[in-house]
Amino acid sequence: MRIGIDIGGMTVKLGLVDGEKIVAKKVVETDSAKLAPEEVIHNIATAAIALLKENQVGEKECESIGIACPGSVEPKKGTVLYANNIAWENVPLLELFAQYMMQDAQMQIPLAIANDADAAALGEVLYGAAKGKNNAILLTLGTGVGGGVIMDKKIFSGYMAGGCELGHMVIEREGKLCTCGRKGCLEMYASATALMDLARTAATNQPDSMMNEMCGNDLSKLNGKMIFDAQKQKDSAAMQVVDTYEEDLSIGIANLVNIFRPEIFILGGGVSAQKEYLTDELQKRVNGLCFDVKYGYVPPIVTSQLGNDAGIIGAAYL
Amino acid sequence: MRIGIDIGGMTVKLGLVDGEKIVAKKVVETDSAKLAPEEVIHNIATAAIALLKENQVGEKECESIGIACPGSVEPKKGTVLYANNIAWENVPLLELFAQYMMQDAQMQIPLAIANDADAAALGEVLYGAAKGKNNAILLTLGTGVGGGVIMDKKIFSGYMAGGCELGHMVIEREGKLCTCGRKGCLEMYASATALMDLARTAATNQPDSMMNEMCGNDLSKLNGKMIFDAQKQKDSAAMQVVDTYEEDLSIGIANLVNIFRPEIFILGGGVSAQKEYLTDELQKRVNGLCFDVKYGYVPPIVTSQLGNDAGIIGAAYL
Repeated sequence: MRIGIDIGGMTVKLGLVDGEKIVAKKVVETDSAKLAPEEVIHNIATAAIALLKENQVGEKECESIGIACPGSVEPKKGTVLYANNIAWENVPLLELFAQYMMQDAQMQIPLAIANDADAAALGEVLYGAAKGKNNAILLTLGTGVGGGVIMDKKIFSGYMAGGCELGHMVIEREGKLCTCGRKGCLEMYASATALMDLARTAATNQPDSMMNEMCGNDLSKLNGKMIFDAQKQKDSAAMQVVDTYEEDLSIGIANLVNIFRPEIFILGGGVSAQKEYLTDELQKRVNGLCFDVKYGYVPPIVTSQLGNDAGIIGAAYL
Repeated sequence: MRIGIDIGGMTVKLGLVDGEKIVAKKVVETDSAKLAPEEVIHNIATAAIALLKENQVGEKECESIGIACPGSVEPKKGTVLYANNIAWENVPLLELFAQYMMQDAQMQIPLAIANDADAAALGEVLYGAAKGKNNAILLTLGTGVGGGVIMDKKIFSGYMAGGCELGHMVIEREGKLCTCGRKGCLEMYASATALMDLARTAATNQPDSMMNEMCGNDLSKLNGKMIFDAQKQKDSAAMQVVDTYEEDLSIGIANLVNIFRPEIFILGGGVSAQKEYLTDELQKRVNGLCFDVKYGYVPPIVTSQLGNDAGIIGAAYL
């Protein structure tokens, strides 16, 4: 038995993991706006202890507890250097967690941390979309574009802090200004946010687009599914939006294939809900973009299988 | 003692390597336009045998022979999949080389091959600009943009054939058409060729630019040194050219830093002759471009130390 913990902006999800299954779950509010990091970590430790006790799992039966955290982490030191969306900076996460586990339950269980996208990628390789593969890239298309690279079934996070920021690869010199300060990062073109921005602009400029009707003429209610649904019904504004989005996403995927040549390329995040409808089209485009079309290996592009559980499962096996 | 062999478009360079020194060299014409791959490989084997005999190095004193080859190679099988500039396709290089070594000299020495940029990167890590480091990226700025990535003192060439093509990362959607078929690859902006193209256009459009005088008004004779010399003398056309070139090169370097966070970033190829004059400026730009400026590690940018010997030395230690 192991515990995998996935710290998110709103909630912290804990799972008791047995093999490839999550046999029990707990959720804690993150509430980082109100609580100090120490309090959040204490709450997580309390929940982990409860998860073990409620399921009659003793200290020695729990092989490890792994924690997936957003932002820049330093796995060797067990610290969170900087996690923007929970406003943590230089937090000694593992030290505090170990201290609470000892103080509250006299438990000493091996601990590990990783970036959340890295943990999710590991989860997909161990028990998800890339099961049986050794090397994979997971690109998550959500608010931003995150990613994880797995090499020989291990997380590759760059040699030094700040590596594997796959969304912060410029694909457009002098392009759109990114939150990281650069212009033209992949994140500005391939995130779910970018897709929504494109669609809202198109729907505004083309009032007869189905997208307006679908969201009841309130573009704040437009979602990804509506955009793809309109595109499937040949709405010209939506067709243009999806074409542009897929073109830019393909550029990013092909860049990463040319660098890593993974065995398999996994897409996660909200946009990946389109499954084969999205990946079939991306595969066609990426096949034509990779270097050395004749001999170069082009990986299959698939969507995440574990979804929101990928981080818990990956964290359990750090 | 080891032998390192670097196959180039015009010549094949062989070196007898002892520790970090090349103690003897031989050069063979590649002549791939006239000779079949089998003949070229036979000539290389003959030269390797001569190099050993002339230096009284017996079969058992030579630990290994490594061959660096341009293009896509398959190190495990010992084959060259495709090397555009010597027009080799599916050549079983190591099998043939071993056969000639046995047939002509009854020698059986451990053999290895690698891509030439990969071998050069390894050479720089072992005995050159990145000596003492475990992880480095070498970006070669020549006719094209090639690269090698070293992880834990070993070559990383992607999991499958065709990986680590660092020059074929799009940095400009819908940009300049690259020889690989894509638009906007880094190679089209950061190669020595790209610098020359920029400069020729600028010198043509601005007839009073010093660059015209420097090359005797024959732009086919313009070279990289002239461009930087004119820029140092505040020639406005040259200043604009170098600024654009450095900006685009910085984008490529920052992209790779965000992905790999190497300990050190090495520039090779013709343009790197500018040494600190180039790297000081690039360092300033890249420092401001990398993700997570506060905690993220930004590697020092340096130029190659081994130059044309990097491939021989790296090949010797494959």
